[in-house]
Amino acid sequence: MKLTKAVITAASPDHRTLPIQTLVDRDGSPRSVLEILIREIHSTGIEDVCLIIHPGDADAYRQAIADTPVRLNFVEQHERLGYGHALSLAADFTAGEPFFHAVSDHLFISQDSEHSCAQQLIEMARAEDCAVSGVQSTRETEIQHYGAIAGNLQRAASGESIYLIKDVIEKPTPTEAEQKLIVPGLRAGRYLTFFGMHVLTPLVMEMLTERVGAAKASGESIQLSPVLSDLSRREQYAAIQIQGDRHDISLKYGLVHAQLALALAGSEREEILRDLLDIVARSRR
Amino acid sequence: MKLTKAVITAASPDHRTLPIQTLVDRDGSPRSVLEILIREIHSTGIEDVCLIIHPGDADAYRQAIADTPVRLNFVEQHERLGYGHALSLAADFTAGEPFFHAVSDHLFISQDSEHSCAQQLIEMARAEDCAVSGVQSTRETEIQHYGAIAGNLQRAASGESIYLIKDVIEKPTPTEAEQKLIVPGLRAGRYLTFFGMHVLTPLVMEMLTERVGAAKASGESIQLSPVLSDLSRREQYAAIQIQGDRHDISLKYGLVHAQLALALAGSEREEILRDLLDIVARSRR
Repeated sequence: MKLTKAVITAASPDHRTLPIQTLVDRDGSPRSVLEILIREIHSTGIEDVCLIIHPGDADAYRQAIADTPVRLNFVEQHERLGYGHALSLAADFTAGEPFFHAVSDHLFISQDSEHSCAQQLIEMARAEDCAVSGVQSTRETEIQHYGAIAGNLQRAASGESIYLIKDVIEKPTPTEAEQKLIVPGLRAGRYLTFFGMHVLTPLVMEMLTERVGAAKASGESIQLSPVLSDLSRREQYAAIQIQGDRHDISLKYGLVHAQLALALAGSEREEILRDLLDIVARSRR
Repeated sequence: MKLTKAVITAASPDHRTLPIQTLVDRDGSPRSVLEILIREIHSTGIEDVCLIIHPGDADAYRQAIADTPVRLNFVEQHERLGYGHALSLAADFTAGEPFFHAVSDHLFISQDSEHSCAQQLIEMARAEDCAVSGVQSTRETEIQHYGAIAGNLQRAASGESIYLIKDVIEKPTPTEAEQKLIVPGLRAGRYLTFFGMHVLTPLVMEMLTERVGAAKASGESIQLSPVLSDLSRREQYAAIQIQGDRHDISLKYGLVHAQLALALAGSEREEILRDLLDIVARSRR
């Protein structure tokens, strides 16, 4: 699979300032959440990135991505027709090619020092030549926040585990999950939910685009999960468990947790651990 | 001492965005660093606050302080003549009255759940009827970042410990500290450094204002510590050790440390501790 393009969605009016928040990166340099993501994407060999943004945000985003070697394209989402609609606006950019896609309000931290999260996903997609979604084992009590998959465990050509996706359900209830989303090989009460990174095929973009007319007429928003559910019935579509963590920075303490995880994965780990213990020791309610 | 006014300095071009950073406050609400400080000041009975700002920042600061019952005054610092000069610009506002003063790039977290840091300081100043600086016991290795005092331990009318300040030295070397700043009653290798909060008298404002003409002629900046050193020779001037911590948010991990300390002092302490342990456990370099 030839994979040279990435699409990042950042158009949600509630979340548009999150990607431009500054964190101290693993190497001790200040970088925006978005810049950290784009550096990770670029390190996989992708050189064209399309950002779907809220109208008027291009300048702020450009400022938050200093000196990138990546070619940036900005597309504004003028209608509030949902996440799937935002993604469909990159159709001209992807131009019938497969593409990497990540959300911009998460920080992705690999637990594999040799392979970033994006790299784990992209290597698998290139090897298997099909759509691949990153997933993570998630406790039953938290699955209602995510898109979740049903699938069968297989061995990929590389020898790694891969799941062939049979269905996708957005924000399942525990009952739905128990009936439809049991995945062999996972611990009891655990399900596979989306990590926030996918490699998607031209068919996904076609299916999204087909839904735009109806959405404009009805005003109902387009979500990605139903399209991925359709995808699982029309093409080979796989998932891999990413060795890493996703930190949703839209949560109340999301940014501080993301910063800590990032700092603990970096060169100042020992100092950060010492400071943490000191803060905990001095704290009282 | 009648104390109804506060002056907050926020004019440093390097630090002007720090006071408007948003943190999750102890009660779980999002608030800017500045708003948290102003709420603490207001709870001591102070109702007039003067902010010394970088030209043009008033709107951003006003936005960062939602619905305050405090009367806000903004004064722009147009010349880069230092911290002491910034403070002198509040002379019309203080109008010959004593005033509370705090820096805006620190978060102050009390270890006394009944008394905020500002309250500890202000109660002592009202009772002792003199200028009082908040200080903190600081290791010798860190004193070169702060203003430090020499003083004698006394008992205040309230029975609490108080130091009568004999001298103030800005950013002392360990040798200077050993020669001039030994404070009886402190552990060896520890000195008293400024916490970032003071109650200051009209004489301080007079001395600052007197220095402005010379500073404008020479272009040299005015610092606060030399003026406070003079103050210690001209008036009764005391210090109290604040039961609390100051978090300098201009440091690399300053904001994240401040946020953690604030969260650990609040109603979500147990949840935060659990999350912290989880993040540490999952982290690796």
